[in-house]
Amino acid sequence: MSYAPSNSLLGRAKAGEIAAIARLISRAEAGIPEARDTLAEIYQGSGKAHVIGITGVPGSGKSTLVATLAARLRAQGQKIGIVAVDPSSPYTGGSILGDRIRMSDLASDPGVYIRSMATRGAVGGLARATLDAVDILDVGGFDTIIIETVGVGQDEVEIAKASNTTVVVSAPGLGDDVQAIKAGMLEIADIHVVSKCDRSDATRTISDLKHMLMLGLKPGDKPEWNAPVVGISSYAGEGFDDLIDALNRHRNVAFDTETGRKRRLAIASYRLLKTAENLLLERFVENSNPHRLALAQRLSARQADPYSLANELVTASLG
Amino acid sequence: MSYAPSNSLLGRAKAGEIAAIARLISRAEAGIPEARDTLAEIYQGSGKAHVIGITGVPGSGKSTLVATLAARLRAQGQKIGIVAVDPSSPYTGGSILGDRIRMSDLASDPGVYIRSMATRGAVGGLARATLDAVDILDVGGFDTIIIETVGVGQDEVEIAKASNTTVVVSAPGLGDDVQAIKAGMLEIADIHVVSKCDRSDATRTISDLKHMLMLGLKPGDKPEWNAPVVGISSYAGEGFDDLIDALNRHRNVAFDTETGRKRRLAIASYRLLKTAENLLLERFVENSNPHRLALAQRLSARQADPYSLANELVTASLG
Repeated sequence: MSYAPSNSLLGRAKAGEIAAIARLISRAEAGIPEARDTLAEIYQGSGKAHVIGITGVPGSGKSTLVATLAARLRAQGQKIGIVAVDPSSPYTGGSILGDRIRMSDLASDPGVYIRSMATRGAVGGLARATLDAVDILDVGGFDTIIIETVGVGQDEVEIAKASNTTVVVSAPGLGDDVQAIKAGMLEIADIHVVSKCDRSDATRTISDLKHMLMLGLKPGDKPEWNAPVVGISSYAGEGFDDLIDALNRHRNVAFDTETGRKRRLAIASYRLLKTAENLLLERFVENSNPHRLALAQRLSARQADPYSLANELVTASLG
Repeated sequence: MSYAPSNSLLGRAKAGEIAAIARLISRAEAGIPEARDTLAEIYQGSGKAHVIGITGVPGSGKSTLVATLAARLRAQGQKIGIVAVDPSSPYTGGSILGDRIRMSDLASDPGVYIRSMATRGAVGGLARATLDAVDILDVGGFDTIIIETVGVGQDEVEIAKASNTTVVVSAPGLGDDVQAIKAGMLEIADIHVVSKCDRSDATRTISDLKHMLMLGLKPGDKPEWNAPVVGISSYAGEGFDDLIDALNRHRNVAFDTETGRKRRLAIASYRLLKTAENLLLERFVENSNPHRLALAQRLSARQADPYSLANELVTASLG
């Protein structure tokens, strides 16, 4: 009988063992080649969990919303995975910074797993690693997996979009609040949440948002779904029944309709591109090493410009 | 006489016209091919300004430090460019969010130009665009150019390193403050700043930092330079004379020594790689388009895993 450490690690992850899941995610994040065989097997077995992307500008109350939502779904008996792609995220290495009581409660519950992704490395790396982590949690038996991203960079918005259901969080009192949310962010929402609805100015934020959505409405764009606007207050614990209801209704659209099928295809295409970019850059860095010094010397001496020399480097490296 | 719009734009930028500089940076940021010819010419004429990279964890007081430092250097008659690579940066599109009086003062001064770079797009894109922006400000006659990056992602730290002088900002009261600063960030510092030194716990932060630096000291690593630790208080306006003195002393090392020459070569090599990666990905996305749908369909149907299909996509696209 042969010794197969990867398979036994995968077997333990499939049985829901947190240490094994954490180790698989670390290996996927590091992008080590031997992890890829395991990931291929994981990929074939994933696709069951409801993957929810939650994004919003800094200060929109995303993290508190995620914590409260996770606690509610957990109370219904679900296992919840959270993958945070946010440099300012309050989670770190599975534990929680600061004094967020609710998050600390979650952190000690084995039915909730929280993971911060390092926002570093080559392009495609972050998206690739995040989607690999989601698959690992999926085969690990997590029912709902939340991808939390800060809605600032294009990559972060794209990652939130690579989910079954995308939630965009707005909040009152962020200066030019709703205006500051980029059109691209509103467009990707399956569900709009306005947080901090215990504040008196939240009504205005909701009506501004609805007005903006009406202006941008393209009829027939999403025939099976009309993105609702849900007001919540994490502080008062209000609005979460409506949010969970909207999530469940959209889950059916995502899994059982032609719209959902097209979306899965678009996500597959995005994931394919990001994984390929990652692979391509890995090879390029390796192949370009022997050529770099001579070209860098010419660049440093300002004998030629970065674009011409980069062009030479690409040509030399790809043969 | 031929009409040469790019050249006249460049001519106006060289004369220090802010609107022309801003337009060139926007074109560089968008990466439009016709901008590259202009950038080639710009590159040959740059290299005079003192480029200072300033990085630190969120909450370290980087932006306030940058504002105060810029105001001090401006008062000495220098023209100051600030390129902010930080999603949580208080600057936006050349103007300033929030109620920072000092920053607002700077924003109305034509001798200070502040630019936020969008943290989006392909890999290498951010570094490439940031370094292009620095060159444009350089030929536009700015004496000191500050690149401000949030010290979280690897890319951001690398960008701060691609300067003549790198300043790493620490602050008291950030939880496990100094410990939380990654070793990689401390290593890149030519000057360490501990901000918020009006606080009583700053002395402890300074001594902890010095202790960490002693532990990590590699003798002979930087023979011409021993990175100093400078305590400042933007609130009380203290420590900035020491900081400016350290910056000037390091400027001499950066421009006039063998250490400086090696560093310029390393930066050129980094810039070359990032520009080449950007170029390679641009071509790849274009070439891969005809092959993506069929492979994405197989991925979406889980007939194969992302890594095998990405490999097929790379092979098909590079032919």
